[in-house]
Amino acid sequence: MRDPVILLTEADLRTLVPLDLAAVDCVEDAFRALATKPVAMPPILRLDIPEHRGEVDVKTAYVPGLDTFAIKISPGFFSNPEIGLPSTNGMMVVLSARTGLVQALLLDNGYLTDVRTAAAGAVAARHLARDDCRTAAILGAGMQAEMQAVALSLVRPVQAFRIWARDPGKATALCDRLRGRGLAAAPATTVEDATSGADVIVTTTPAPSPVLHDAAPGQHITAMGSDAEHKNEVAPALLARATYVADRLSQTRRLGELHHAIATGAVPADRVFLELGQVIAGLAPGRSRPDQITLADLTGTGIQDTAIAALAFARARAAGAGQSFTV
Amino acid sequence: MRDPVILLTEADLRTLVPLDLAAVDCVEDAFRALATKPVAMPPILRLDIPEHRGEVDVKTAYVPGLDTFAIKISPGFFSNPEIGLPSTNGMMVVLSARTGLVQALLLDNGYLTDVRTAAAGAVAARHLARDDCRTAAILGAGMQAEMQAVALSLVRPVQAFRIWARDPGKATALCDRLRGRGLAAAPATTVEDATSGADVIVTTTPAPSPVLHDAAPGQHITAMGSDAEHKNEVAPALLARATYVADRLSQTRRLGELHHAIATGAVPADRVFLELGQVIAGLAPGRSRPDQITLADLTGTGIQDTAIAALAFARARAAGAGQSFTV
Repeated sequence: MRDPVILLTEADLRTLVPLDLAAVDCVEDAFRALATKPVAMPPILRLDIPEHRGEVDVKTAYVPGLDTFAIKISPGFFSNPEIGLPSTNGMMVVLSARTGLVQALLLDNGYLTDVRTAAAGAVAARHLARDDCRTAAILGAGMQAEMQAVALSLVRPVQAFRIWARDPGKATALCDRLRGRGLAAAPATTVEDATSGADVIVTTTPAPSPVLHDAAPGQHITAMGSDAEHKNEVAPALLARATYVADRLSQTRRLGELHHAIATGAVPADRVFLELGQVIAGLAPGRSRPDQITLADLTGTGIQDTAIAALAFARARAAGAGQSFTV
Repeated sequence: MRDPVILLTEADLRTLVPLDLAAVDCVEDAFRALATKPVAMPPILRLDIPEHRGEVDVKTAYVPGLDTFAIKISPGFFSNPEIGLPSTNGMMVVLSARTGLVQALLLDNGYLTDVRTAAAGAVAARHLARDDCRTAAILGAGMQAEMQAVALSLVRPVQAFRIWARDPGKATALCDRLRGRGLAAAPATTVEDATSGADVIVTTTPAPSPVLHDAAPGQHITAMGSDAEHKNEVAPALLARATYVADRLSQTRRLGELHHAIATGAVPADRVFLELGQVIAGLAPGRSRPDQITLADLTGTGIQDTAIAALAFARARAAGAGQSFTV
């Protein structure tokens, strides 16, 4: 009759889907499809549970040509750390695009989101940063800061990472972790120390007001910290000067750095900008001059989830990984 | 650390959550909460995959006081029968309302939806039909027709079911199944034959144009077939004459029988009607006279899913049912 359902745990998925070039290519393909195929990506479903400081986002997208699509459930419960649990969690359900039958349950606790988010940063750098990048500044020192550094090193020959965080101890700790992964990294005491002379700047903080106010000709900025209305890492005036590329324009207008540039009047609300997929597909130029300032505004999209989940599922089947259930 | 995740199959869930009075009470409590508590029930997330005649709805709701909430994934892929698969499927994910952690995976293939939908019909009859109901007409002969008959018999002393369906063979087959469950049932050749003299009428068809045009004083109608814009079982003029009660007014205006009554001008678009939860909570009268025609318009709500999933999860934990995973 029907295929069994495969259940994969976070441990399974960490083995099956490391953050590598294949993951980057997978996410790049998804962005290309977004610009060239009739992708279906409905608005995010959002449930708020204020009495427990909780919120849940549900994202999905269908990419023509993929046999599966994913529905991702992302809870964020911000009192969890008080009882020793992480704030964010979640899982993905993989369904057949032909029959709607559940194919796999990816109990990843948010790991695949971390991978696809970092991969999108690498895709942005691959298409917008100069080829000869040698130095990168990472603002923020959390999990995603580490993964963005690793992802960037997959696509550009970065020889030095400079890490800035509000808490200097966290910046130092991240440098230690990056060195443990073979990446040269040093902490910076100010944002300016980190970014001055850097070829790439990646912002990964949850800041509610800008931490990056200026950039030099030739720099590429990946702003991946804003996935909600109140977050804002890049000064509106800097955004207005840069060659701006959205992951999904309809979403960055609402949730991204662009939202704040519009709100402050630095950019007209109806101004049309490029999307990353259009640049990847060659439908529009991203960086056309070495002295351009480029800025990728990444808020996270359902196609990335569908793409990374399809990769996980295909590898799980090929490897016979996970546990199977007849339902 | 954290609780394991419990996986329950359809077979587990059929054992744990039969369609009984406890299921009816569980759904009734959810509707009461909808009228009396700050329930969060965001609009349905809908993904369409027209090239495979597929669609997916994702519903959720948070009911204050319940320790869990459910996210339900309901795919409908209408070419599936051509390859021997059911059109509709799906599953629910149960999450902690306090931490957002995944608690259980209910791989029910839509079974719990069938139960909570039938239970809502019983709740409507309990609060809107006369106490002395003896005869019921069921229009339609599918799975839900059968379950509505069973649910109704839990709350009203029905001594005879009359079944009408476009395909007389299916009506006869349903009568056989109902008799096998101890319910007296006979097929009717026309809608009028079925409904004439019936105390309760339940419409369960996917009809795109009205099948029920008239009703007599004292009859109660539960219209549960319309969960999409194009479905319409009850004539607008009949709806306008009846004491109308919605499961969720904002939703029946868009998807339910009310949608068509508004579209044809039989009812003003801004007319305010009761919701079932308000009647249950005693905030407004449902049936106040024996000669009233009452009409419950049921389109299906996320609170029903959250309620039935919470019941399933509580029973599974109490029984030690299902398979546990550390994730």
